[in-house]
Amino acid sequence: MHAIGRRARAAARALARADSALKNRALGEMAAAIRARSAELLAANARDVKQARAGAQSAAFIDRLALDANGVEAMATGLESIAALPDPVGAITDLQRQPSGIDVGRMRVPLGVIGIIYESRPDVTADAAGLCVKSGNACILRGGSEAQASNRAIAACVTAGLAAAGLPESAVQMVQTPDRAAVGELITMTEYVDIIVPRGGKSLIERLARESRIPMIKHLDGVCHVYIDDAADPDMAVRIADNAKTQRYGTCNTMETLLVAESIAPAVLPRIAEIYRAKGVEMRGDEAARRLIAGANPASEDDWHAEYLAPIVAIRVVSGIDAAIEHIEKYGSRHTDAIVTQDEARARRFLREVDSSSVLVNASTRFADGYEYGLGAEIGISTDKLHARGPVGLEGLTTQKFVVLGHGELRN
Amino acid sequence: MHAIGRRARAAARALARADSALKNRALGEMAAAIRARSAELLAANARDVKQARAGAQSAAFIDRLALDANGVEAMATGLESIAALPDPVGAITDLQRQPSGIDVGRMRVPLGVIGIIYESRPDVTADAAGLCVKSGNACILRGGSEAQASNRAIAACVTAGLAAAGLPESAVQMVQTPDRAAVGELITMTEYVDIIVPRGGKSLIERLARESRIPMIKHLDGVCHVYIDDAADPDMAVRIADNAKTQRYGTCNTMETLLVAESIAPAVLPRIAEIYRAKGVEMRGDEAARRLIAGANPASEDDWHAEYLAPIVAIRVVSGIDAAIEHIEKYGSRHTDAIVTQDEARARRFLREVDSSSVLVNASTRFADGYEYGLGAEIGISTDKLHARGPVGLEGLTTQKFVVLGHGELRN
Repeated sequence: MHAIGRRARAAARALARADSALKNRALGEMAAAIRARSAELLAANARDVKQARAGAQSAAFIDRLALDANGVEAMATGLESIAALPDPVGAITDLQRQPSGIDVGRMRVPLGVIGIIYESRPDVTADAAGLCVKSGNACILRGGSEAQASNRAIAACVTAGLAAAGLPESAVQMVQTPDRAAVGELITMTEYVDIIVPRGGKSLIERLARESRIPMIKHLDGVCHVYIDDAADPDMAVRIADNAKTQRYGTCNTMETLLVAESIAPAVLPRIAEIYRAKGVEMRGDEAARRLIAGANPASEDDWHAEYLAPIVAIRVVSGIDAAIEHIEKYGSRHTDAIVTQDEARARRFLREVDSSSVLVNASTRFADGYEYGLGAEIGISTDKLHARGPVGLEGLTTQKFVVLGHGELRN
Repeated sequence: MHAIGRRARAAARALARADSALKNRALGEMAAAIRARSAELLAANARDVKQARAGAQSAAFIDRLALDANGVEAMATGLESIAALPDPVGAITDLQRQPSGIDVGRMRVPLGVIGIIYESRPDVTADAAGLCVKSGNACILRGGSEAQASNRAIAACVTAGLAAAGLPESAVQMVQTPDRAAVGELITMTEYVDIIVPRGGKSLIERLARESRIPMIKHLDGVCHVYIDDAADPDMAVRIADNAKTQRYGTCNTMETLLVAESIAPAVLPRIAEIYRAKGVEMRGDEAARRLIAGANPASEDDWHAEYLAPIVAIRVVSGIDAAIEHIEKYGSRHTDAIVTQDEARARRFLREVDSSSVLVNASTRFADGYEYGLGAEIGISTDKLHARGPVGLEGLTTQKFVVLGHGELRN
């Protein structure tokens, strides 16, 4: 691992110097290689899928692992769209003349070396490599052992792209050894790795967070809330409560708990419940909610903490915005929370006081995503407060240094 | 400690909600209390100094510990100038309409609870409290046991200021117990503390960095370089080499190694050496430097790594900008490095390729400082790349969350 780290550090210097045209060319060549070797990639993936089936992995697991021709094409177009994004690196901003005469500004620069640890999804290999190269970072990829053949085939395309553009092949290195010790080394090589991005289930991320000596871009839970304020537009409230829960069940920005102000609850909850019932969503409510929803199950304390990632929703009737903010403070995971209201002052309070990485007014929590936010792509979502918070795109993979343009100034 | 942490977390919520006028009022009241209790503060400090003398502390230690009437007034005016700075918190920036119709922007918000660990300087108490309150953060202060009486007296003024403004007194808490275990708890209470700022000697910071489970704003070394390029203005080069080394010897942004391009060395090194000699600066050079400087001592490998914090300088003649960048990459501490050159392309290369928190062109390294950079104040300087890099002012004590202003948008 240390040899890999050393090579990554050296490659990072070359990538930091590379201009946008060179990096974009590498991304384009990677996409071309993926298209050219599509049959190879599919064959490698088929071997992984076969083995996973033999190993009695779950259907959801196989679903994340399996690639088809559309999936391969999506990897290629993904790389091309990363190439089309503006290069975050190199520009000097905020230049300001100081009383001493020096001009002080900031230059955006790559972080250096990024370690990415993920599980069964092989398309992460192309995606992560593309984001790192575009932002001028070297990366060390450690994919799940179940996707080894697929990852190796994709990494070969990435390497071919780097070589075709004249960039060092060690800018993207895949850790191939199946043993867990490699991960332990990767997350403690502080001299070679600047940041770790774990992508996977909560137990993986918890373990990595406990053992890592390197900062991480990560989130553990997405216990997201929609609060329907008494000043909400009832039709909008119904639509948002529906979309935030049912548009997709398994994503981290899906609403898990619906909070409803008591004065508006009779007007909206029965309508929302009808939709959930029709879509097969199990409802677990507090007493007041259950009085308005026939057939809802009682919610326990655990339900307020739960990230279901499933067609289940917890519903609580609250006295108003203060109680809603209290609830989110107590049970939320600081991921994504929304208010539905026509009252601007309350919207502002919610925006300011809810301490989450994304706070929304009159929109579905499902929008908390790098693409929807206009970042172009995302390497992950962070619920930590430092460095990068919320969906993390290319900018989150960079940092700023101070630059000073002087004319011979001395300090008195 | 956990009770202190819980109180800090609660106070942080109140401070995050406090508007600028309230926070500024608290800072003004703190300053007033410090002025009103000046005699008390000086008496408390005199007790600390007497005990330190009895304990045979060094003169430098006593110097950092001792306050006089000017020092007390400086604390008060320091708080007033923090009050006069713009409030970083609350504004929504970068609002942009996305194709879905939502407006996505970012709101700057406090980090939460900041732990500050420092050594003998009691004025840090007022300074750190002021910066944290202004940026909307609660803080837990742990000062050196040798400054206990002084710190307690200053903290009483801070608390009085908070109370006068109606802010919770536990927004600034001083840890009074002298035992080291308290520090160990402070740097591992991840549920209550969001960031640690250590201020003190390298050994303190190394130990804290090893043991902390909480991210830090810190730097260990300031091995700063000035590189005199062959395209430098010789007079400017001489002035900057003088100022960067001799304006103050003990600060982290003082130049420790001077790199000179070989073609310009004969024109500038003898002149620089004459100045250093007159000021009593010991010179340690490589062979080429010693041929141009009578009486310079030979530099060893250790000298290139050294942060002298003293009237000693290491001098090396290099072939040009590539060798200078190589040297800084190998021996530097990523703190602050400067180039002196009239060649714009080389200045740009140096700015881009030197991976330090501050990179300067034609200015003294001594400018790397929050006040000189226009930040108004600084809580410290960070050589880490994440979150805050270089001098850290109020903005570095905040983070940004995403805010979404919708109109009922749903995700498709």
